[in-house]
Amino acid sequence: MEIPYKIYLSEAEMPRYWYNVRADMQTKPAPLLNPVTGKPMTVEELSGVFCEELVKQELDDDTRFYPIPEDILSFYRMYRPSPLVRAYCLEEKLKTPAKIYYKFEGNNTSGSHKLNSAVAQAYYAKMQGLKGVTTETGAGQWGTALSMACSYFGLDCRVYMVKVSYEQKPFRREVMKVYGASVTPSPSDTTAVGRKILAEHPGTTGSLGCAISEAVETAVSNPGYRYVLGSVLNQVLLHQSVIGVETKIAMDKYGIKPDVIIGCAGGGSNLGGLIAPFMGEKLRGEADYRFVAVEPASCPSLTRGVYAYDFCDTGAVCPLAKMYTLGSDFIPAPNHAGGLRYHGMSPVLSELYHQGMLEAVSVPQTAVFEAAEAFARVEGILPAPESSHAIKAAMDEAIRCRETGEAKTILFGLTGTGYFDLVAYEKFHDRQMDDYVPTDEELARYAAKLPKV
Amino acid sequence: MEIPYKIYLSEAEMPRYWYNVRADMQTKPAPLLNPVTGKPMTVEELSGVFCEELVKQELDDDTRFYPIPEDILSFYRMYRPSPLVRAYCLEEKLKTPAKIYYKFEGNNTSGSHKLNSAVAQAYYAKMQGLKGVTTETGAGQWGTALSMACSYFGLDCRVYMVKVSYEQKPFRREVMKVYGASVTPSPSDTTAVGRKILAEHPGTTGSLGCAISEAVETAVSNPGYRYVLGSVLNQVLLHQSVIGVETKIAMDKYGIKPDVIIGCAGGGSNLGGLIAPFMGEKLRGEADYRFVAVEPASCPSLTRGVYAYDFCDTGAVCPLAKMYTLGSDFIPAPNHAGGLRYHGMSPVLSELYHQGMLEAVSVPQTAVFEAAEAFARVEGILPAPESSHAIKAAMDEAIRCRETGEAKTILFGLTGTGYFDLVAYEKFHDRQMDDYVPTDEELARYAAKLPKV
Repeated sequence: MEIPYKIYLSEAEMPRYWYNVRADMQTKPAPLLNPVTGKPMTVEELSGVFCEELVKQELDDDTRFYPIPEDILSFYRMYRPSPLVRAYCLEEKLKTPAKIYYKFEGNNTSGSHKLNSAVAQAYYAKMQGLKGVTTETGAGQWGTALSMACSYFGLDCRVYMVKVSYEQKPFRREVMKVYGASVTPSPSDTTAVGRKILAEHPGTTGSLGCAISEAVETAVSNPGYRYVLGSVLNQVLLHQSVIGVETKIAMDKYGIKPDVIIGCAGGGSNLGGLIAPFMGEKLRGEADYRFVAVEPASCPSLTRGVYAYDFCDTGAVCPLAKMYTLGSDFIPAPNHAGGLRYHGMSPVLSELYHQGMLEAVSVPQTAVFEAAEAFARVEGILPAPESSHAIKAAMDEAIRCRETGEAKTILFGLTGTGYFDLVAYEKFHDRQMDDYVPTDEELARYAAKLPKV
Repeated sequence: MEIPYKIYLSEAEMPRYWYNVRADMQTKPAPLLNPVTGKPMTVEELSGVFCEELVKQELDDDTRFYPIPEDILSFYRMYRPSPLVRAYCLEEKLKTPAKIYYKFEGNNTSGSHKLNSAVAQAYYAKMQGLKGVTTETGAGQWGTALSMACSYFGLDCRVYMVKVSYEQKPFRREVMKVYGASVTPSPSDTTAVGRKILAEHPGTTGSLGCAISEAVETAVSNPGYRYVLGSVLNQVLLHQSVIGVETKIAMDKYGIKPDVIIGCAGGGSNLGGLIAPFMGEKLRGEADYRFVAVEPASCPSLTRGVYAYDFCDTGAVCPLAKMYTLGSDFIPAPNHAGGLRYHGMSPVLSELYHQGMLEAVSVPQTAVFEAAEAFARVEGILPAPESSHAIKAAMDEAIRCRETGEAKTILFGLTGTGYFDLVAYEKFHDRQMDDYVPTDEELARYAAKLPKV
């Protein structure tokens, strides 16, 4: 069978289930802990914040396959399947014997893979009879995805957007408004925590930690609302497995077996989704693959963090999660790969990394943008800075193949497009990009402040 | 055969030729005239400005099919086939018995259909051994497409960007730079015409007419360079026929016959491409369709213009074309649907309209954005303002079907995405949109200044 340049599954071939990699892990990720009692969070405790079905998914380490509800499948058909592309032009440019494939998740208006989980979370909120959901957003990728999903299901969507992004990145804000979301610059006077912060720090431009706190407060204090999150959580990785399952179906159809699978990793939503079914095979001893997480050198949670319980948010309102972390008040240097600025890493990926099932590398930002531009020029697509971390690592792998003569098959996740990241590209063109890397002393200082569990 | 939600042709099914609708027109479009001699432009005259093969295509009213060169097919495979989508959610929202389909051309980094002709023009420049091409751009859609195509073929790309857009819309400028284009704000001191304008009007923010003049001067005064244009010309409609041919192959495969085909029309590149093979059938008497051109009420060249010879540019350096025109110095009211601000209309479409083969309607801008937002909320895609003119007309047609009970099949062209048009969406949200429509007196004043041929 001739392999097409871009592989699109037919609608009949599209996956009808999500795959829960936890079911195949012998040692499960550590449970979320209640920061007050130090005990695992219960269904009741979590249900005040999250939708019931999502709490179930969050805590379920055993169910291997979750059928995707029909309404979500219908929504997926609006922008899925995403193409699996053979990067012929990139291979030629690198003069590599390697075969490079990428799974492109940017072909939807939200511009990234975030929509895969946004629609699931909105759906379950709707099924529970809720009025709406709240969330926070930094650069706006997650908020955009969620507003699209809420618009489809007729749910109210309240987004707290870090004030500096709200003012300096007005475009994603307007996209969210197109989809009917209410977007509030954070900190705001709409919440107690926001008013407190404004009183203590008048003129503050906000932070993700503060926006999370405002979103959670709004959810728990308004009947019919729950809080939703776009990464890190087990439920998010479950939904994002649609990326990997689709990829695996496509590769199996044409008899392609990747040697190495590469993804950028901030909170882990994309990487966890892409590798899920392949990791399942590895965990069950049915096949072997190398998996590589790529993180920014400025925010190296896997490569230089500590595997410990930590808060998921700077405001410390969320449960404790065991993960590779730099400390919940670690602030990365200005780094425009917004989605990769998170201080921790998905507990699932953290545990897999801890078990040696997953490798990790960190890359400096200027090199990432060089790779992004080289990729754009030959493959056409303008990549998001986050995605470009994976491009950089894939190119490095392909260059090593050129040197060794190995014809490896490399698969990487191209999570999204860079249309809303052109300020960062402009800085790159103007050579004003920041390549700061935290020192060991800095990291040790943050690590010393981790909560004692 | 079950019809998929989104129809993607397989690579084997993709068209391998462009269709030249002029071959089936009994009365051909009027020839371009030399403004000095008043005689038809010769191959020699045009070859100083345009590539040789493109001049041939421009003047060829007889060849029905042009095989698409293999290198262009390879490039097309990077982002084509574009999906033909059944707008189930829009139909449901409108409660219409009509079936609505749209051909979506926005799934590439340039964000629009412009790439279909950009790659062809860059290819022929490369084949002729040229060093590079020059062009002008307003909002930047065409410049972006051309820079991508030039990057692929290793051609120098010099874009003159209207100064006000260069400064106020920096994002497309940066995309062009990612693809290695040099982008000069116009007017500039790099050309004689630019220096003259700067001396006469210091502080001017530029115009498309001035940028065209600078691009043409740069092309003719630099050995190894030619000028290229993204719309209006016959050659552009020829390349854009790939949209219509793909659509027709997909519809024929599933036995779908559109009753009415709708497209936005500025210079006519998208509409001319989309309708081409269907119009061919109508011209040959093999089938009947309704065709509707949708233009902004602020710039109504077909609905309120004059069918006459006019300059293609405000600088009057280009040949005279016979077309529906508002006069080459007509300046539309501020209108953010940038690509539809052109004073004239493709000579091919003008002649077809004159023959009664094509209808035209004009729509006010606020209504266009209302349609755009309604579409985005149910169909997911954030449409470009230009494309949204077609959405508005398609929705109106579907609403009429609801009233009459007719189950018509409506096809429209969704030319691109609105990621770089969020300033316009913001104005819409802030109710600052301009719906100015020129008066009859104004239009008569411009029409009185048309050149005497």
